[in-house]
Amino acid sequence: MTVPHEMKVFAGTGHPEFAHTVAEHLGTELGRLRISRFKDGEAYVKFEESVRGADAYVIQPTCPPVDTNLMELLICMDALRRASAWRITAVVPYYGYARQEKKDAPREPITAKLVADLITAAGANRVMTMDLHADAIQGFFNLPVDHLTAINLISDYFVSKALHNIVVVSPDEGRVKKTRKVVATLNAPLAVGYKHHPGLGVTEVTHLAGDVKGKTPIIIEDMITSGGSMVEAVDTLLKHGCNPNIHIACTHGVFAADALKRLGDRPEVAEIITTDTIPLGPGGGHPKLRTLSVAPLFSEAIRRANQDLSITSLFQ
Amino acid sequence: MTVPHEMKVFAGTGHPEFAHTVAEHLGTELGRLRISRFKDGEAYVKFEESVRGADAYVIQPTCPPVDTNLMELLICMDALRRASAWRITAVVPYYGYARQEKKDAPREPITAKLVADLITAAGANRVMTMDLHADAIQGFFNLPVDHLTAINLISDYFVSKALHNIVVVSPDEGRVKKTRKVVATLNAPLAVGYKHHPGLGVTEVTHLAGDVKGKTPIIIEDMITSGGSMVEAVDTLLKHGCNPNIHIACTHGVFAADALKRLGDRPEVAEIITTDTIPLGPGGGHPKLRTLSVAPLFSEAIRRANQDLSITSLFQ
Amino acid sequence: MTVPHEMKVFAGTGHPEFAHTVAEHLGTELGRLRISRFKDGEAYVKFEESVRGADAYVIQPTCPPVDTNLMELLICMDALRRASAWRITAVVPYYGYARQEKKDAPREPITAKLVADLITAAGANRVMTMDLHADAIQGFFNLPVDHLTAINLISDYFVSKALHNIVVVSPDEGRVKKTRKVVATLNAPLAVGYKHHPGLGVTEVTHLAGDVKGKTPIIIEDMITSGGSMVEAVDTLLKHGCNPNIHIACTHGVFAADALKRLGDRPEVAEIITTDTIPLGPGGGHPKLRTLSVAPLFSEAIRRANQDLSITSLFQ
Amino acid sequence: MTVPHEMKVFAGTGHPEFAHTVAEHLGTELGRLRISRFKDGEAYVKFEESVRGADAYVIQPTCPPVDTNLMELLICMDALRRASAWRITAVVPYYGYARQEKKDAPREPITAKLVADLITAAGANRVMTMDLHADAIQGFFNLPVDHLTAINLISDYFVSKALHNIVVVSPDEGRVKKTRKVVATLNAPLAVGYKHHPGLGVTEVTHLAGDVKGKTPIIIEDMITSGGSMVEAVDTLLKHGCNPNIHIACTHGVFAADALKRLGDRPEVAEIITTDTIPLGPGGGHPKLRTLSVAPLFSEAIRRANQDLSITSLFQ
Amino acid sequence: MTVPHEMKVFAGTGHPEFAHTVAEHLGTELGRLRISRFKDGEAYVKFEESVRGADAYVIQPTCPPVDTNLMELLICMDALRRASAWRITAVVPYYGYARQEKKDAPREPITAKLVADLITAAGANRVMTMDLHADAIQGFFNLPVDHLTAINLISDYFVSKALHNIVVVSPDEGRVKKTRKVVATLNAPLAVGYKHHPGLGVTEVTHLAGDVKGKTPIIIEDMITSGGSMVEAVDTLLKHGCNPNIHIACTHGVFAADALKRLGDRPEVAEIITTDTIPLGPGGGHPKLRTLSVAPLFSEAIRRANQDLSITSLFQ
Amino acid sequence: MTVPHEMKVFAGTGHPEFAHTVAEHLGTELGRLRISRFKDGEAYVKFEESVRGADAYVIQPTCPPVDTNLMELLICMDALRRASAWRITAVVPYYGYARQEKKDAPREPITAKLVADLITAAGANRVMTMDLHADAIQGFFNLPVDHLTAINLISDYFVSKALHNIVVVSPDEGRVKKTRKVVATLNAPLAVGYKHHPGLGVTEVTHLAGDVKGKTPIIIEDMITSGGSMVEAVDTLLKHGCNPNIHIACTHGVFAADALKRLGDRPEVAEIITTDTIPLGPGGGHPKLRTLSVAPLFSEAIRRANQDLSITSLFQ
Repeated sequence: MTVPHEMKVFAGTGHPEFAHTVAEHLGTELGRLRISRFKDGEAYVKFEESVRGADAYVIQPTCPPVDTNLMELLICMDALRRASAWRITAVVPYYGYARQEKKDAPREPITAKLVADLITAAGANRVMTMDLHADAIQGFFNLPVDHLTAINLISDYFVSKALHNIVVVSPDEGRVKKTRKVVATLNAPLAVGYKHHPGLGVTEVTHLAGDVKGKTPIIIEDMITSGGSMVEAVDTLLKHGCNPNIHIACTHGVFAADALKRLGDRPEVAEIITTDTIPLGPGGGHPKLRTLSVAPLFSEAIRRANQDLSITSLFQ
Repeated sequence: MTVPHEMKVFAGTGHPEFAHTVAEHLGTELGRLRISRFKDGEAYVKFEESVRGADAYVIQPTCPPVDTNLMELLICMDALRRASAWRITAVVPYYGYARQEKKDAPREPITAKLVADLITAAGANRVMTMDLHADAIQGFFNLPVDHLTAINLISDYFVSKALHNIVVVSPDEGRVKKTRKVVATLNAPLAVGYKHHPGLGVTEVTHLAGDVKGKTPIIIEDMITSGGSMVEAVDTLLKHGCNPNIHIACTHGVFAADALKRLGDRPEVAEIITTDTIPLGPGGGHPKLRTLSVAPLFSEAIRRANQDLSITSLFQ
Repeated sequence: MTVPHEMKVFAGTGHPEFAHTVAEHLGTELGRLRISRFKDGEAYVKFEESVRGADAYVIQPTCPPVDTNLMELLICMDALRRASAWRITAVVPYYGYARQEKKDAPREPITAKLVADLITAAGANRVMTMDLHADAIQGFFNLPVDHLTAINLISDYFVSKALHNIVVVSPDEGRVKKTRKVVATLNAPLAVGYKHHPGLGVTEVTHLAGDVKGKTPIIIEDMITSGGSMVEAVDTLLKHGCNPNIHIACTHGVFAADALKRLGDRPEVAEIITTDTIPLGPGGGHPKLRTLSVAPLFSEAIRRANQDLSITSLFQ
Repeated sequence: MTVPHEMKVFAGTGHPEFAHTVAEHLGTELGRLRISRFKDGEAYVKFEESVRGADAYVIQPTCPPVDTNLMELLICMDALRRASAWRITAVVPYYGYARQEKKDAPREPITAKLVADLITAAGANRVMTMDLHADAIQGFFNLPVDHLTAINLISDYFVSKALHNIVVVSPDEGRVKKTRKVVATLNAPLAVGYKHHPGLGVTEVTHLAGDVKGKTPIIIEDMITSGGSMVEAVDTLLKHGCNPNIHIACTHGVFAADALKRLGDRPEVAEIITTDTIPLGPGGGHPKLRTLSVAPLFSEAIRRANQDLSITSLFQ
Repeated sequence: MTVPHEMKVFAGTGHPEFAHTVAEHLGTELGRLRISRFKDGEAYVKFEESVRGADAYVIQPTCPPVDTNLMELLICMDALRRASAWRITAVVPYYGYARQEKKDAPREPITAKLVADLITAAGANRVMTMDLHADAIQGFFNLPVDHLTAINLISDYFVSKALHNIVVVSPDEGRVKKTRKVVATLNAPLAVGYKHHPGLGVTEVTHLAGDVKGKTPIIIEDMITSGGSMVEAVDTLLKHGCNPNIHIACTHGVFAADALKRLGDRPEVAEIITTDTIPLGPGGGHPKLRTLSVAPLFSEAIRRANQDLSITSLFQ
Repeated sequence: MTVPHEMKVFAGTGHPEFAHTVAEHLGTELGRLRISRFKDGEAYVKFEESVRGADAYVIQPTCPPVDTNLMELLICMDALRRASAWRITAVVPYYGYARQEKKDAPREPITAKLVADLITAAGANRVMTMDLHADAIQGFFNLPVDHLTAINLISDYFVSKALHNIVVVSPDEGRVKKTRKVVATLNAPLAVGYKHHPGLGVTEVTHLAGDVKGKTPIIIEDMITSGGSMVEAVDTLLKHGCNPNIHIACTHGVFAADALKRLGDRPEVAEIITTDTIPLGPGGGHPKLRTLSVAPLFSEAIRRANQDLSITSLFQ
């Protein structure tokens, strides 16, 4: 068997705490990477230790501020390839711009594809990411993509809670498939929210397919941003007579603006489950927020990738 | 305003009747393109009229036999670029391998992306297609893609039928979003089929979210292949008490093997609506099958593309 | 010296027997690769063992059915690169579409180049093949190509037969160079068939340059497809008074339709020598057919490639 | 002569006033381009008029905030190519990250090259820019680059001022060549500032090559960012006895933080000349700041590019 | 019909006389292109008139000195693309390095492919060339290649000579196919030279397949370089009793060193036919040399390419 | 730690003595590489030992004759990649065409970028070079570039000479930055030559910024070609009263034509320092020429690159 190349893990400024935790799980220290900003805001990047022949990993979720985090990642890739790293892996726990993975209207970009092209152009050899908003984004790359998932972690969490009379809810018609695993693990029925526009001059309303009356809903999403559609889902569920004991779960907790407060302050919301792919925003946390750590998953995936071991067991 | 380049429309052997209809709508004749097969099955392609400086369109759905239809398309692209065509558009009414647009398991390919890469490598400058199985496939290309839809045609058809007490049904949790437009146009409620695996050693069954009792279902799919999941959907709907007056609609009628017969012979199935993106298979048609033609849509899209006119109105 | 990466050999469905023989010679087993077809004919590929960091070889001649065999190969490449194989070698004992390696007429494709581009686009890192119809096809790739030859095997066979008064025959003017090695090894004179078109309204006939009277001809070709030009060569030789003891040899025995029967049933044809780069067609074999195995050559080439040893000795 | 394609000029959010002025000079209106930000900061771009077949120009300096302006530009390129624009020109009056055009230390990126690669990957066909920090950046592209200059405008301004006893000053040894044109036009001597590090533990100081005693300095730079080195240049000039009547000129006035105030408040600084490639920062203007407009230059360059006329006269 | 872009024809220094003749046939003047060499031998290229939007042709055979002629061509391509030419055609009447179109031995380059890659990398959009040493070289490009031939010109010349009792001779086994057209036009038999190596320690000798006794040979080659193998062919023909009235024809007369003298001074050589794709070498001409001009062919091909007319009739 | 791949060092014909010296320092022998020229001047390249899996270095400065040296390098790259070398490094001690790294006038090429593209297209994986005329050329590559410098060697040489009252001189305004390191090491003042064009009809003259009166000048350049501007610098320095004891130093001594004699024969020129990146031209050496060897630097860089060790210490 071939000897693995030396593994070096670096942290961008997107989520250094997460990177530290990953490194700790790996039993290593983060490599010395200096990232600073000039007075005019341009990023300056310098790897302060040799990366020649190294198997280099840069951990950088492209969470807000998305453009600066993304550019930082790209600049790191460029520096690594020019510095003769053997293999460069962009570790992107949260992949920004993922919701723009198709054209909903003419003359729109497909920014999620553009981002994939930029990461490739900058010199990445591989990508490691988690719960992409659309599975097809993996195909936006011709590079190998290790696509991890937090869905087992979340399912297991709810199994351990042993809630009764559950209904799994997909809050919008585009993401129903995401719930498949949870539905199967919890052996629970499904309900699906969908937008309905009853007629000209009337506001679009959220309807519901599936029976939730008297049931305890677990709403499953890949990410929560402004929280607007989640609030609508909560209202719709209540209107259809669910238990006022609503559980919300998402892999990526962006929680822009006051999203966390808007959801958490609702008395019918029992708890909000997320992971640590994204640092908590400026608004801070919430008593009802519970964060499951995916750092062990990422560290194990990095360890196996470095050693050419299968990582299948991590996402199935 | 610039003068348009001469438009030349050619037909692969995938669906010559469709190509002829498109050409007729354009008021033109198909260009002279010879495609034959050597005794060992290799395709021989020759454009038998000059294409220098032409705005060339090759109409070729990559329906079964998918590999030979695809290779033929690629070979045509190669011949056109070597023959100095000004612009080459692959017109692919049905995009084969579209269901393999993501990895469902480790060490699978993403064949829908591979196909996009092959079309690009062969020399296409633009792509025109319809109702891709996953919208993100558009992003698999960096070429401009004109993504047409038959969903308005189908919605309008059901509006004209004036059915009562309708429920729109998505037969599986991955395609719910496809129904959005139909739900809105018909102002009808939605029901969603989903797979449920009650336990070890028990067969997976199809469940239903949403109320269909006493309602007339319109099942919406982008494509029907083996018909297997559609038969399950019919069974599930009936079990939940729908009217035995089920309408089935899909853009792409692949109808492999005896799919059409299996569905059409069911007394509860009232009719099966599809379009002409794919020629009828060897099994022939069925009395309950009704085919709406998308040839006018494609011809109008080609005409506008050639003249640099917006085609937005065609897919909104 | 560096430690070789783990070698994994897989078989496409193009010629599994050959792949098995190669694996046997390597003292290994074929890797677990599942290739099936959906009901609509789309290929489904899944590598059922880890290929991370592996030196992967996929053995797949692109013989008839050429398009499906080729697509299968491409899909395998795509799956391997996405699964983080270290190096991917397309082992293509017979390279289909090789006869379309140039434009003989305007607005033709150069399909042999297109195929090279497709293999590259799909993710192959290296190619291993045998007796390409045109040597320049090697230049269609920028990838390293290990171009093996069966010509020594064939020459040696005829040396061992110890035939007397031989003449080596090239049946057509485009392939004369192929005979160079045989002529040298057997120290025999050469004759060349060439097409001659005596005038308007008269059929093209095959002429002969070189003296064959009373000699025992060995006709050398790289491949036999329909057998048509080979039958003409036989007729021409006989007309010029050769011994009715004609030996025919080719590396690639495509033998489309009844080619084998047409040739073999001729009493003047003594034997037909070919190799096992292609499985016998549906018509089965023929008593006069003798197949030399190139599996040992391929297995040795793979073994050396894996160990970074020179393979020069295998094709000189 | 061929008919020009329809010219469409769009403004990113980097400097809309400048884009408006350019459009005015062209006698046209800016195209309808909507750029907004989601709550999580992701950019949303939509061209709200057809761009099919258009000769499209997007005006977007990549000034601070550099990463968001750059991403916006890239996203616009992607949207335009997917919308079948005929030709896409990135008009980047100020090219951010230009100072990182080489590696000054090991394991640094070459971000200016990366930016060129990103612009190319996003789909731009041509680039129009001004006074790049390093001329070689033009070579970072394989696209045609129209590289305009404001140096004539600045030279002419000083000719019209008719100052006496001038010395042209390059404040640092890396940019001396930039002054060549000014030196020639004003027929004035040159002085060059350079850093000198007299020994361990001693601070680096700015020295001066050339005589400035009793002379009126015109300091020429391509850009002023933090103003730090410009302040040092002023001090050095004064120490060497120049007239306390210092003129400062730069094409790109970034003026990060309080740069403008630090320079303008110096009594020996007579005036600061810049252009309008960058909007005034949050600190606002300064009484001594005089802005020359390069919008006429850009509009003329766009007009000529659209009509395939030479633009040489604009930069010589 | 679209208006053609302005055609501009430029001459490299490889064969300015030929370029002038082509321009004359086109009724135009050569564009102003300055090519000089610095004292250290580096080429300096500058187009001294606008090429924006032009359909630009650079005529440059890559004959000796091959490397400098090739680099000059590449530099011209680079300058044209940076100067916004609309379309760039490399007109390469003689394609140097064409004989290295395959690997004859391990660890050789395929220089003819490398040259194609370099021309593509430098920015050419199209290639126009003549009688490539191997037809497959056309496939080395993915660009459109207009592959002209002088073979009709040469055949017609011999038809007009009305020689009697002709035999067409291919001097070596690799180029027999080149003679096909001449054989057909002249309705003459064929003879083929081939190398034969009778045994260890014995020199390789040239044998002949086909009957030449008492016949007047016309030897057909694509190019004559050192003339060595042509001299051998003459000797072999004479040894086999041909008429001492040998006609030699080739498209490309490289005539390195004293090749022309060696051949022309042989009394049995009646004449040597070539074309003007290459300028006469330093040794000058020879009384028996007759040069047919292909400039009319090239000028007609350029005119038609510029006007998007078929050029098929020029090479069939 | 991973085991290094076998290092193989080869010499082009550009400077075999230098390559031998490098190999000697590495304690190895040059690999067997045969480079010859056919009679028509085409290069023939063949690696005469296996390079499979090797870490291959080809040492070839692209000094005069620049085009043939460059093509030879490209052909070597092509042969190596086709022969399955593991990693290919172009070692280019002197990078020809480097002065054409930007457009000084419209419709010029950027040949230094073109050369980078050609080296990349030919298959190089890495580049090792020295004192590029413009630092940004490093950014012309996306490959890793090890950019060595001789400036420390030169500075150290002058430190050891212990000259008094030194002034460091940059002979032209474009290269001032090159002197930074020398100025710092010698702790000496700087003077800068610059061109001045006093008016119409008057010849351009070289002026000087900085005080040289009574000082001993060390003129620093990266390269000397024709020597013309160096002679002007000498004249200008003398006119400004410097000591007639002028030291000239450059990394790359091209010394075209009689450059060395013109400079060396001047009595005021004390010595000319250069390195061995380029072989001495046909004019031979000069008594005042002193050549410092950079072969130890290159051999150490190759050794470290092969072993994945940092080479930072070599260029800082």
